[in-house]
Amino acid sequence: MNINKGVASPSSPPTALRLRILLSIPDAERAAFISPETRTALSELGDITEIAPAELQSLDAFAAAAADKDAFITAWGFPRLDAEHLAAAPNLKCVVHAASSLHALVSDTFWAAGIPISQAGAAMAPAVAELSLTFTLNLLRRVHLLDHSLRTGASWDDARNVSRAREISGARIGVVGASRTGRRYIDACLALGAKVSVCDPYIPAGDPLAAHSATLHDLLAGSDVVAIHAPATPETEGLIGAAELALLPDGAALVNTARSTIVDMEALYKEVHSGRIDAALDVFDQEPLPTDNPWRSLPNVLLTPHLGGATVDSRRRAGAIVVDELRRYISGEPLEHALTRTDLERMG
Amino acid sequence: MNINKGVASPSSPPTALRLRILLSIPDAERAAFISPETRTALSELGDITEIAPAELQSLDAFAAAAADKDAFITAWGFPRLDAEHLAAAPNLKCVVHAASSLHALVSDTFWAAGIPISQAGAAMAPAVAELSLTFTLNLLRRVHLLDHSLRTGASWDDARNVSRAREISGARIGVVGASRTGRRYIDACLALGAKVSVCDPYIPAGDPLAAHSATLHDLLAGSDVVAIHAPATPETEGLIGAAELALLPDGAALVNTARSTIVDMEALYKEVHSGRIDAALDVFDQEPLPTDNPWRSLPNVLLTPHLGGATVDSRRRAGAIVVDELRRYISGEPLEHALTRTDLERMG
Repeated sequence: MNINKGVASPSSPPTALRLRILLSIPDAERAAFISPETRTALSELGDITEIAPAELQSLDAFAAAAADKDAFITAWGFPRLDAEHLAAAPNLKCVVHAASSLHALVSDTFWAAGIPISQAGAAMAPAVAELSLTFTLNLLRRVHLLDHSLRTGASWDDARNVSRAREISGARIGVVGASRTGRRYIDACLALGAKVSVCDPYIPAGDPLAAHSATLHDLLAGSDVVAIHAPATPETEGLIGAAELALLPDGAALVNTARSTIVDMEALYKEVHSGRIDAALDVFDQEPLPTDNPWRSLPNVLLTPHLGGATVDSRRRAGAIVVDELRRYISGEPLEHALTRTDLERMG
Repeated sequence: MNINKGVASPSSPPTALRLRILLSIPDAERAAFISPETRTALSELGDITEIAPAELQSLDAFAAAAADKDAFITAWGFPRLDAEHLAAAPNLKCVVHAASSLHALVSDTFWAAGIPISQAGAAMAPAVAELSLTFTLNLLRRVHLLDHSLRTGASWDDARNVSRAREISGARIGVVGASRTGRRYIDACLALGAKVSVCDPYIPAGDPLAAHSATLHDLLAGSDVVAIHAPATPETEGLIGAAELALLPDGAALVNTARSTIVDMEALYKEVHSGRIDAALDVFDQEPLPTDNPWRSLPNVLLTPHLGGATVDSRRRAGAIVVDELRRYISGEPLEHALTRTDLERMG
């Protein structure tokens, strides 16, 4: 018998503070985000109703699931929170998005309603930065080209006859965008001895990165590898066009694990197809990338199917962020990963 | 007019100390090793005669070139320094080998002659370590498999349907061999947040690496990626056989940028072919690797044609080592990269 009446144990907070939670993450991804530990921690914060987003596409189904819920946990495929959906979820107090982009989820009405929303993009940044680093090392050493030669019938000597490989220690790495991901990537490159320059109009005075600042022109003209880590905004659309790509030195390479809209992909294709530069790409103008898309057959490009943020580790971190944000909400603390409409416009 | 008679300027040492140098590096590689700066520095140490090793294959040609030389600078393809060759080079005082392995160059007679020999393997270690790191990141993120899927016609969704990628931060990396290269690789992995274990019977007490020591059994059973950085010696031949590979967890991967003899390549092929583990290989039992060799067509392997040490940077470092060793020889200082017969047996 508990004689400390009114004092809740850590594992069972007062009933009044328990949330009714709608957990809606696609089946294929749910276990990756919600580990057994995360599930236990969530269940201490409230009662969880688990419904895949595919089953919430009709407004009726959504309303039946959402009517009494205090919080939503979302990832991909959840219905857009427009006026109708908000009217069907009158108790909604908080949304925690376990994935990154909020564009498909929020609406003018949602922002007007003032419901706090958090996003677990922080969980993905290290994963994307590591893919960008992996791409960078491949391009400097031309591992992609060597591997492709050996598996398409080139003789040993022909495969070896590529222009000389460079080490990341001492290489000139140009980073377009001092985003959270860009900063993680820069840290890794510096740890491995690279010379880093960065172009971002929003680096604050006094930021240690300011010492690495360069104009876009100088960055492009003086880099062995250029990595895109800018957000996809109207300001960055087509930022790297034909004229910018032409500035890259012969034998340089481009890494894009951010968004394809920042780069003129046709202009890039021409440069890579000519063999003047190489590229490594996780993002494309057309996703899914069709099986007959010409990017798929260039020997001097390295391709991955938009999985920069998708690691075991990033999913686990996102699950932990979800739990922490809901715990903060219950405790009346400010959310650590809350986004405003202005944030979203800047982040793309 | 120089009134300080007998005091040589730095650019022209006393004639008595100038060396007659035979510089013999294959044409295709010479410029990479001997930059204009290196050539200038060499010419301050002596008179350089430059003859490609291909032109020194007959004993007569060798004798004509070597008869008056004090020093040889070699890389690949130079004749073995046996009794006949040594007799034809009676003035030989010093050999500096710009590449790594000395096995094709030295003989019993050479060792018995007591001529000092240096080797620029130190120049290659950072290059090999970086290739090993590049391989490791590819394997953890399964970039090789994703890329191969996209370029062999897989649909976007099928390509994405690989088991989840892992980040190097937090990954368990097992290193077989605390060689110079292994240590560079370990430093990079630790800088990126990996958990490193290392197996090497010769780690001295008090070495910081001792804290990472593991038995081979525990290392293999508890690693996400195992990287081979041991020398090829009788002791390490077949060290990683079928039984050892079977210890690797499902989904683990093997990196070999050292020598293929350390691994039972047939046993490795079986494990990789089954899909249970992945591999990234720079070295093979048969080099050149024939175009129809089955390693060339496995989707879950990443291949490069034994170029681990071949970077612009490593060749320049090797050239600098050559100059520094000859300068030390002239000054009567001990050579920094000299090897004894015992060293060679230990190094493989």
